[in-house]
Amino acid sequence: MGQRRNPFPSTGESRDGGHRAAGEGQPRTLSGIRCTGRGDFRKDLRPKGTLEALFSRDTKAELSTIIALHHGLGLRAEPLGAEDARQFEPALNEEVAAAVLRPDEASVDNRALTAAILEAAQRSGAEVFSGNGAKAMWREKNRCAGLVLENERVAAQWTIIAAGCFSVTIEGIAPYAPVRPAKGQMAALRADHLKMERVLWSEKVYLVPRNDGRIVAGATVEYAGFDKRTTAGGMEKILSAAIELAPGLAEARIEEMWAGLRPDSPDHLPILGPTDIDGLLIATGHFRSGILLTPVTARLVREWIIEQRVSVDWDRFSPLRFQTEKTDATNTMPA
Amino acid sequence: MGQRRNPFPSTGESRDGGHRAAGEGQPRTLSGIRCTGRGDFRKDLRPKGTLEALFSRDTKAELSTIIALHHGLGLRAEPLGAEDARQFEPALNEEVAAAVLRPDEASVDNRALTAAILEAAQRSGAEVFSGNGAKAMWREKNRCAGLVLENERVAAQWTIIAAGCFSVTIEGIAPYAPVRPAKGQMAALRADHLKMERVLWSEKVYLVPRNDGRIVAGATVEYAGFDKRTTAGGMEKILSAAIELAPGLAEARIEEMWAGLRPDSPDHLPILGPTDIDGLLIATGHFRSGILLTPVTARLVREWIIEQRVSVDWDRFSPLRFQTEKTDATNTMPA
Repeated sequence: MGQRRNPFPSTGESRDGGHRAAGEGQPRTLSGIRCTGRGDFRKDLRPKGTLEALFSRDTKAELSTIIALHHGLGLRAEPLGAEDARQFEPALNEEVAAAVLRPDEASVDNRALTAAILEAAQRSGAEVFSGNGAKAMWREKNRCAGLVLENERVAAQWTIIAAGCFSVTIEGIAPYAPVRPAKGQMAALRADHLKMERVLWSEKVYLVPRNDGRIVAGATVEYAGFDKRTTAGGMEKILSAAIELAPGLAEARIEEMWAGLRPDSPDHLPILGPTDIDGLLIATGHFRSGILLTPVTARLVREWIIEQRVSVDWDRFSPLRFQTEKTDATNTMPA
Repeated sequence: MGQRRNPFPSTGESRDGGHRAAGEGQPRTLSGIRCTGRGDFRKDLRPKGTLEALFSRDTKAELSTIIALHHGLGLRAEPLGAEDARQFEPALNEEVAAAVLRPDEASVDNRALTAAILEAAQRSGAEVFSGNGAKAMWREKNRCAGLVLENERVAAQWTIIAAGCFSVTIEGIAPYAPVRPAKGQMAALRADHLKMERVLWSEKVYLVPRNDGRIVAGATVEYAGFDKRTTAGGMEKILSAAIELAPGLAEARIEEMWAGLRPDSPDHLPILGPTDIDGLLIATGHFRSGILLTPVTARLVREWIIEQRVSVDWDRFSPLRFQTEKTDATNTMPA
């Protein structure tokens, strides 16, 4: 396995929203996907950068930390004074103290991207068993022979469990992918009077303008099981933080509210690679960065299957790391 | 016309929510409606009282004002200390300073009531032209002969315009009913873990528990034209005030959000009574108390049509009061 720079940004940094593209020297995130379908997600791609707004008093220290962090990863990041920030994004609260502009970042409509990938896969010959939940791994001795669906079995030479937080509900998978859902509530706003070019960040919320004129605001991180309902407290947090960041949003119409479930792992790192069962790979646990890490994840899985080697070191993401922990725990149990 | 006590609570007092029943000595609000249909709204009637929570420091003065006001109208109102208030309603914020219990107040599901009234009217022989908006008054000299619908005319001996804020859009009606829509945003929450028996009030929000387990939170007052969309700012206000009043609501699921349009009049008083056109009556402008004032409104209109006299003085609500003002305004125009 070749050793390269860690392709995964540290989890503390890879915040929500599917809109942080990798910088130079990184595997390019979106350009890595060849979209052969007609549902081209690129019309929903916005390579317009991100503006992170700082409201605290000690912005000097905060600014240099953020910038050093990004430069250390080879990513462009530029400090801005309050006036310059509002020049870039007039929707910003006048009380902004400073900002960081990250010109290389992009956003993509996750729904459009998912539809495009699905269509591209089908055009490449993938068979889709839609509405057929995977119930269990189909195990034969120490080999995974495929998957057990509701009323049938699907044989496969390689089985990749990439079912997000639902991976853990597939029989036989929990030891490799002990993920739990981290609920994230979202709101889609429409404010025709408001100009917003870039993704806006604050400590409390992010705002992602879409090409269709919607502004997506999110997101909470809640451990509430497999519950996708929106709550009064979650929405109140998102809406008040959104209005604090861009006060004109108070007049924005609420077009949609929803919640998604991200797969969080015990150490908050992705779970990616082969297991100790032949033919079984895991690709989940990407927490809040699932879409951002799609290209590199797809590439590594493809490399493993085709070449039996991967171009970056993925050992720390191994699905076997939880079984070790489990054995340790057993060993230290009182007699 | 007989002179009785003013059947309309002062507009400043008759706040939102369709849940303030009149006390002794007043025309009973809901018992005045005979419901002959099967869609009995009484299963959605909750005669459990209202608890108004006070959070300010100077609660003593506020308490005595509220109680004097209610007693002056012949309505029961009882001061409560913080502990007693939380005994009655454990969902209340611990920081409540004092409260007023109004045991005679009731709430009713406005949708159920509307359906029940419509069904009762049909069973009594009323003909319903559903989906047929009234376009204009059908005028013949100084007489109203009925209404002009989209593609037909409906003749009537008496025509009563009771179309809420839309009354103003019916041709010929604006001079009598210069109402404008006052938008009120609402949220329906569900918190199975939360016990709430009574209607809860604060300065910023009201919470109405329904018999189906929902808690309806409202409402804003916005002048935004005929726009029923919910906004980020409106919902943020309602949700944050609801959570402040009953912190457990943070966990409540948002089941529905909507906005309604109340008919507000230039002096915020109802517009009720005959016009200077024979056969034309107006019944609108009830602002935030439309449902509360339904029984007395229906009674007065019925009395006028059947007996040509009404049992309470309704002169100050006359639809002719705006024409007088208009003439005055013309007189004071600069030459």
